[in-house]
Amino acid sequence: MEYSVREVTGFLQTHFPQAYEGKKEFHVEAVGARKARVRQSFSGSQLRPGGTISGPTMMGLADFTFYVAILGALGPVMLAVTTNLSINFLRKPLPADLIAEAEILKLGKRLAVGHVHVFSDGQAEPVAHASLTFSIPPQ
Amino acid sequence: MEYSVREVTGFLQTHFPQAYEGKKEFHVEAVGARKARVRQSFSGSQLRPGGTISGPTMMGLADFTFYVAILGALGPVMLAVTTNLSINFLRKPLPADLIAEAEILKLGKRLAVGHVHVFSDGQAEPVAHASLTFSIPPQ
Amino acid sequence: MEYSVREVTGFLQTHFPQAYEGKKEFHVEAVGARKARVRQSFSGSQLRPGGTISGPTMMGLADFTFYVAILGALGPVMLAVTTNLSINFLRKPLPADLIAEAEILKLGKRLAVGHVHVFSDGQAEPVAHASLTFSIPPQ
Amino acid sequence: MEYSVREVTGFLQTHFPQAYEGKKEFHVEAVGARKARVRQSFSGSQLRPGGTISGPTMMGLADFTFYVAILGALGPVMLAVTTNLSINFLRKPLPADLIAEAEILKLGKRLAVGHVHVFSDGQAEPVAHASLTFSIPPQ
Repeated sequence: MEYSVREVTGFLQTHFPQAYEGKKEFHVEAVGARKARVRQSFSGSQLRPGGTISGPTMMGLADFTFYVAILGALGPVMLAVTTNLSINFLRKPLPADLIAEAEILKLGKRLAVGHVHVFSDGQAEPVAHASLTFSIPPQ
Repeated sequence: MEYSVREVTGFLQTHFPQAYEGKKEFHVEAVGARKARVRQSFSGSQLRPGGTISGPTMMGLADFTFYVAILGALGPVMLAVTTNLSINFLRKPLPADLIAEAEILKLGKRLAVGHVHVFSDGQAEPVAHASLTFSIPPQ
Repeated sequence: MEYSVREVTGFLQTHFPQAYEGKKEFHVEAVGARKARVRQSFSGSQLRPGGTISGPTMMGLADFTFYVAILGALGPVMLAVTTNLSINFLRKPLPADLIAEAEILKLGKRLAVGHVHVFSDGQAEPVAHASLTFSIPPQ
Repeated sequence: MEYSVREVTGFLQTHFPQAYEGKKEFHVEAVGARKARVRQSFSGSQLRPGGTISGPTMMGLADFTFYVAILGALGPVMLAVTTNLSINFLRKPLPADLIAEAEILKLGKRLAVGHVHVFSDGQAEPVAHASLTFSIPPQ
C-alpha cells in the first residue's frame, strides 16, 4: 500500500509544523513507488556569502525528502530517524527554489537506505547528491 | 602560523553574521593545531518531535566547526566550501548545548579533510560523528 | 569527445594488468555519456562465510567502474585517484557475476563526483550503492 | 566483558581463513576497550601504478579492523555485516606495512558505528580515515 501527497502532507503538518513555518516552506509534490519529490521555496535567508544557498539548507531538504519517501511507503504512523547522511555538493545552487527527488533503494525491516538528488529549479544537473540511511523502529 | 579565537570570531562576525543571529548562537571556544571547538547554545526551536535536537542542527554545527578549524589553520582570508559531509547519528542528544570538536587530518593545497565529534554538554559519549572535505580555492 | 569500450579496455589492459589477472576478471561492457558498466566474473574465492560475496570485492568493483566512466569521458591518458568512497550494502549478493553501473554527476576540473549501483546478474534490485569522488590532476 | 588478541585471532583463523592466506596477512595487534589495531604485511601485489597501495586494500583493512573491534567487544560468536563504509584517502601510502586503528563510537543492540585511522608503518599522519556501520544480528 502507498500513501498520497495529501495524506503525507496532512501527517507532516500535524507532526512537523516547524517544516511549514517561516523560511522552510517545504511542499511535497509527489510520493509513491518508493520515491518522493519535495520543493523548498527560495528565501533570501538561506543565502551564504557569495549568493549561494547554504549547505545545511540542502542537507535539511535531502533529509526531509527521504523521510517523505519513507512515509509514502510505510504510512503516516511511523517514527523513523536518520542514522547516516552522506552528501556531495556538486555545483553552486541558483537563487531559486530547490527541488529534491528521493529514491528508496532498500526498505528493510530495520533500515531504509536510498539517495536524493537536489536540483535548482529549472536546471538539469543536480546541485547535490546525498545517500541516507534511516533506522525504522519496530512497528 | 595559527590564528586565535579572537581573530577567527572577528572574521566570522563580519562575514557570517547569520551564524550569530537568532537561534544559532555559535561560540568558538578554541582553535589551533588543526583543531577547533565550537559550542552551540541550546534553543527550544532546535527540537524535533520526541524532544531531540534535529539532525540538520547537528550537521550545520559540524560543518561550521570544521570551517572554523580551517580558518584557524589558514587564516581569515580564504573562501573554502564543503564538498562532502558524511555524518553518523549515534545517540539522541540531550536538551542542552551542543559542543563540536573538529580535527583536520589532511590540509592539502586543494582539499582539507577531517572529522568532527559532536557532544551534548557534559556527556562523554558523542551524539554524532561527521567526516568532511572542503575544497580550498587557489589563494 | 568520448572514448569507446575498445579504447578504454586497451588502456586498462596496458596500465592495470592486475585487473585482468586471476580472480578479478573485469569486463568493460559499456562506456559513454558519463556512464560506464562493468561486469565482474563470479569466482568462489570472493565468497565470505555464509556464501556471500565480500564487501571489499564490491568496493573494488565500484571504484574500478567509476574510474572507467572517467576514462570514457576524459580519455586514456589521465591519472585520477579516489579521494572518497561511501558505500551502502543493501542486500546479500547472489553467487553470480556482479554488474556495476557508474554515472558521473559532476565532471569538474579538479574533482569528478558520481555514484555506482552494483547488481547481482539478473536481479533488478541493487546489492550495493556507492558515491565516489576522484581527484583529477592538472592535465 | 572483553576478549583477548588470542581469542579473537583464534576465532578469525577458524572462520575467516582467507584473511590469513596469500597476500592478506592480517595480524591482530591489540583489542579491548572498544578498540582494535591490525597490521597488514606489505606485499608487492597490493601496488597500483605509481607505486602506491591500492584503495581496495585499505578499504578491506579498515573493514576487517572494525570487525575485529566488534569481536573484541561482543565475543567470537556473532555474525555482523557491514552496512556502510565511507572512506577518505588522505595521502599516498608508503611501500610498507599498513596499520589500522579502529574505535567503536556506538555499540547498540542493532548497529555498531565507529571509525578507523589507517597509517603507513612509522608515519604519524594517517593515509586514510574511514567511518563504518555494522549491523548486529539478534543474539
